[in-house]
Amino acid sequence: MSLRLHAPVVLPCDSSCSVLRDAVVDVVDGRITYVGGAAEAPAFDGEIRRLSGILLPGLVNTHAHSPMTVLRGLGSDLPLLRWLQEQMWPNEARMTAADVGTGMLLGAVEMLRHGVTTSAEMYFHGPELVSSVLAAGSRVVFGAAILDVPGMSWRSMTDEISAWIDADGLQFADGRVELAYGPHSAYTLSPAQLTSIAGEARARGALLMVHVAESPFEDEAQRAEFGSVPALLKASDVLGGRVLSAHSVHLSDDDIALYASFGVGVAHCPGSNAKLASGIARVPEMLAAGVPVGLGTDGPASNDDLDLFEEARLAGLFARVSKMDATVLGAAQALLMATRGGAAALGRDDIGALEAGRWGDVVHVDADDPAFATGLDAPDSQLLANLVWASGARRITDVWVGGEHVVAGGESTRVDRQEAQAGVTAVAQRLRNT
Amino acid sequence: MSLRLHAPVVLPCDSSCSVLRDAVVDVVDGRITYVGGAAEAPAFDGEIRRLSGILLPGLVNTHAHSPMTVLRGLGSDLPLLRWLQEQMWPNEARMTAADVGTGMLLGAVEMLRHGVTTSAEMYFHGPELVSSVLAAGSRVVFGAAILDVPGMSWRSMTDEISAWIDADGLQFADGRVELAYGPHSAYTLSPAQLTSIAGEARARGALLMVHVAESPFEDEAQRAEFGSVPALLKASDVLGGRVLSAHSVHLSDDDIALYASFGVGVAHCPGSNAKLASGIARVPEMLAAGVPVGLGTDGPASNDDLDLFEEARLAGLFARVSKMDATVLGAAQALLMATRGGAAALGRDDIGALEAGRWGDVVHVDADDPAFATGLDAPDSQLLANLVWASGARRITDVWVGGEHVVAGGESTRVDRQEAQAGVTAVAQRLRNT
Repeated sequence: MSLRLHAPVVLPCDSSCSVLRDAVVDVVDGRITYVGGAAEAPAFDGEIRRLSGILLPGLVNTHAHSPMTVLRGLGSDLPLLRWLQEQMWPNEARMTAADVGTGMLLGAVEMLRHGVTTSAEMYFHGPELVSSVLAAGSRVVFGAAILDVPGMSWRSMTDEISAWIDADGLQFADGRVELAYGPHSAYTLSPAQLTSIAGEARARGALLMVHVAESPFEDEAQRAEFGSVPALLKASDVLGGRVLSAHSVHLSDDDIALYASFGVGVAHCPGSNAKLASGIARVPEMLAAGVPVGLGTDGPASNDDLDLFEEARLAGLFARVSKMDATVLGAAQALLMATRGGAAALGRDDIGALEAGRWGDVVHVDADDPAFATGLDAPDSQLLANLVWASGARRITDVWVGGEHVVAGGESTRVDRQEAQAGVTAVAQRLRNT
Repeated sequence: MSLRLHAPVVLPCDSSCSVLRDAVVDVVDGRITYVGGAAEAPAFDGEIRRLSGILLPGLVNTHAHSPMTVLRGLGSDLPLLRWLQEQMWPNEARMTAADVGTGMLLGAVEMLRHGVTTSAEMYFHGPELVSSVLAAGSRVVFGAAILDVPGMSWRSMTDEISAWIDADGLQFADGRVELAYGPHSAYTLSPAQLTSIAGEARARGALLMVHVAESPFEDEAQRAEFGSVPALLKASDVLGGRVLSAHSVHLSDDDIALYASFGVGVAHCPGSNAKLASGIARVPEMLAAGVPVGLGTDGPASNDDLDLFEEARLAGLFARVSKMDATVLGAAQALLMATRGGAAALGRDDIGALEAGRWGDVVHVDADDPAFATGLDAPDSQLLANLVWASGARRITDVWVGGEHVVAGGESTRVDRQEAQAGVTAVAQRLRNT
């Protein structure tokens, strides 16, 4: 399979956020082989497709619980703990493995339409979740949720994901699936349990994803004993391997330095953190310290639209207003967090950018929109501003994953969206009527 | 002209934000004559149209400078004053009356597609601006910008709008145009000048719209002398008539009480205030005090997409995170601010709600979207959450203004959108190349 995409503007999302004009992206057997000016491009033997807008890498959603599409909007005006205890947990306890698959299918289709080609999912019922992602044609890093709460065995949850990795490998399905450990948090698992899970992960080179310091209230006992959740993770020997720290709202300077020294990635979820009144994460400080920061939507029950472009805008807005400095976190940096930064936070160098060797995950944003009316020939900074601040996901028409055309004309080529919606409707109705 | 719109869900945006099921909206000769359940509706002689989603009133954008579509994205990473001085003012000085018309035409079309049927515009070249709004088929409250800066005469700007009102009346074109005074701010006009302008406005029953306390830095001299900008406005006898205070970020408790006692409306612009690092307005306090608060996009050069649904979400997010309370400003309240509250802030009782007697400005949100997959039969609070937090403007398919179908299938029925975009492209190219 050989595909050349040729467009007036290509954003490779390299570290300087270059803007290439009249450029091509070549994908051969799923991987990118060339990105650069059309005039200098090598001869190409394969399908050549002309696009009229902007090409950029598929976005990387570093923290999601996407099967919760079946619970979207439930109890949305409650504070975090009551929302969890009264709405989320009781309903999740009644969700079957098939329900998780149904919720994930719609979530994956929805994310692809918003340009998200990879999501890191912390959830239950991995086989059904993964199967829905593969049906939709996107990528997933599945972190099996692990909790020590009544009715759940953290040990068997851990053993289950270890056995799966030992059977199928850390990655499979042409890199569309990566398996990972998802110990929920330091307040639902003991330090010793965290140490044990981290040992399993490290032995396999697997990613460990964990909720950290989301709200100021949820882990008071742990903070009282260890000073902070990152300090607890260090003391519990969790920070040695690949670690993704979700939310990470309430971090001190010392916590940030610790994360930087251990290369801990952060999944910044500005929309969720504001909607649930958890706080504003210290993103400018983390970026300055060299912490790899990506963006996350969180679950669609807490932050409702799985639109990572919106999170990029929110990251910029919250950073600027919290620092009272309009030069903090511009369009280029926000876009990099949604792409390259997200890949780095997951410890992945094969997604998140249009670079030779990475997977051919590409998004096309149509420029036939008021957002781009000042012209595709506008200066680079203006074009990036138009994309991030004005257009966002509104005009995404086409998405490729590993060179496969999975969204065309704004709709999935793999899944009947209306059927996927109807599946979720049936689950939601059953949950509220029984 | 008689039109009945019949949909599974109707949100009249009454003060309790009711959710009507299987309901109709009747519009006769431009005005709403009935809103309520289909089963109880009176016999109807006219066109009956069945819709599959949610009907709500057209949104009211209480603060915009929409002709700035021609400058969208310019210098977007600069701090407020440099951005104004280096990019906005020099370019605006070169914009012709025709350029303003061109920019406003695209802005009006874009807003209609986002469900905004009325915008309050503070800008120059009123005749061309108003003519573009009428061409697009929306409504405008045009506040003629008035400044005392080199090269501009505040006196003749004031006289010009007074003469226009005296010639054509405060409202014309079937209520599609209202004329108003737009004294820019307390730092571009003296107290005596503000007094004089306010006198002209009050004599005509006209709205006066003014920027107040947007950034912490811009009006330091005035605050030093009067204590606050609202105090200056009171001392200058500005607060007697209809006043709309844009931004109003840095208000004290006394300022808020002053606004409440004079019935001053506030145009809250959360996106612009965050992007330009101006601060977070104290919306929960204002609402609690009884100040009429609406939402504003501000100009598309500072807050780029003229999407008032996004401002509703941002209003909720900023209020919650600034108060660290997830029960502040829920979906219903955010929606009311974007509709009924906006009308109240402008001192208008003929728009902003689906109620007998008001204009037939109606928006249809298609429910064929993942945002509504939990079902239109979900509980009221969940449906409102789905609309405000997940769907937003994404799925607006149809818009009526005064019963006229001005957006169908997501596109203007009046204006060729691509031509409107091309017009803006030509202006933007001329401004950057000459």
